[in-house]
Parts: sequence; structure tokens; C-alpha cells
Amino acid sequence: MIKNESVKNGVIFDSGDANTQFSQYFIGTSYLNTLVSENEIVNVSNVTFEPACRNNWHIHHDGYQILLVTGGEGWYQEIGKPAQHLTTGDVIVTHAEIKHWHGATKDSWFEHIAITTGTPEWLEPVSNDDYEQLSN
Amino acid sequence: MIKNESVKNGVIFDSGDANTQFSQYFIGTSYLNTLVSENEIVNVSNVTFEPACRNNWHIHHDGYQILLVTGGEGWYQEIGKPAQHLTTGDVIVTHAEIKHWHGATKDSWFEHIAITTGTPEWLEPVSNDDYEQLSN
Repeated sequence: MIKNESVKNGVIFDSGDANTQFSQYFIGTSYLNTLVSENEIVNVSNVTFEPACRNNWHIHHDGYQILLVTGGEGWYQEIGKPAQHLTTGDVIVTHAEIKHWHGATKDSWFEHIAITTGTPEWLEPVSNDDYEQLSN
Repeated sequence: MIKNESVKNGVIFDSGDANTQFSQYFIGTSYLNTLVSENEIVNVSNVTFEPACRNNWHIHHDGYQILLVTGGEGWYQEIGKPAQHLTTGDVIVTHAEIKHWHGATKDSWFEHIAITTGTPEWLEPVSNDDYEQLSN
């Protein structure tokens, strides 16, 4: 049973096209709608994850990332900490140099706005073992 | 007939309390829910306007403001340009030093997320004559 399927179409902002630009850094399919791209200043994007889709561990150097959850259910985890379950209206701030990942739960679509500055460094995927241990 | 009354309670993020902190710079009542406040780096807030509520003309010095419209109907105007009618899913970028204002239409609640950097300078109110000339 898949939850929150309507999120696929975008809750407030259109979900946009399949995120081919960053697909090498994701497991599963995500959709990207770039809302604002001010070169080297800030990027604001709407990111939509199919169930079980998540991005790789990554770091924002010399910047930050703010996630504003607009729909569905997902996870956010910083290295060395438990994963946090996310639902509509949750807000996450990731400071510079903090290794983290985010994505959907196994059985739900998930969507957030991401406000991002600095330079990303993409690292290894979240292993299936680690992901499967998360309970919805 | 007032439109989009459900926006009063917040669409994605709670509308928060009456915005007493900035009420001197607004005509009418707005509601403020500060989502992220990273001192001198960035502020992310959910702002909800009752019908006909608008903020004064203002400038963001040495920064920018991004508006992400989450519900209802509103206006955005830069000095010397026509006002733009805003609805859910619209995105506005205001660059540094640009004099502008934003708020609800006469007959609708309105809500946006505001991503703000720099230092605001608050100026004169939008006159009733100018506001009344806007057609919904």
C-alpha cells in the first residue's frame, strides 16, 4: 500500500521532470523543479521522491541547506545520529560540513523545498541494510 | 465575499501568531511563523495576510528576498512597475536595493514563505488610493 500518491503531482509547486541532473547521486527516482537559481548565491528547488527514493550521503561546504517539507513522509539523517521521520510542515536546517541524507519512507511519496547555498560534495549511497532498518 | 478563508490557518506551515513584531510596517493584520532564523545569514518565515493587508514599501539592502506563494491571492509590486497578481505556486525574487511591497488582494486571504537576507529598510505605506486602484 503506497501512501500519499497525490504528492507525485506536487503539493504547492509542480513536481517537475525526472531529476536526471542528479540521478547518479540518488537511489530511486526523484523529480526536480528548480524555483530559483541565483548563480553562486542560492538555489531553491522543489524535490519530490518516489517511495524508497533517497539521495546519497552528502555535505554542503561553505553553505547550508534548509528543507521545508510540503507533503508525504520521509527521513532525514545526519551522520552519527538517528534518522528523523519527516511529515508535512517539518523544517530541517543542515549546517555547513555536516554529512547527511534525506529521502522518502519505503511506502510513501515525499516532497520538500530545498534552499541551498555553498558547494555540495556527494558521497556514498545509504546502504540498503541501513535504509531497511528504518521503521516507517 | 471573502475568498480562501482556510488560508488563515496556514496551508503547509502554521500561520502562527499575529505579527506584532512588524505591525508598524503593515496595514491590516498579518500572522508570522518564523521557520528558520540563522542570525545575520538567512530568515525563513511563513507570512499570512488577512484580506487587504499589505506591508509598506521596503528595501532589502545587501541581500535578497524570495517569496514562495503557498495559498490565496495577493499582489507584489516593484517601484515603477505594475503590480503582479499572485496565486499558489508563484515565485518572486527581489534583488537588493529594489523598493517593493507585497500583500493580499482586497477580498482574499494570502500566504507566502519569505526567504530573506540582508537588512530591511521600511518606507512609506502603500496609499489607499494606489491599493484601491488594483483590480482583483
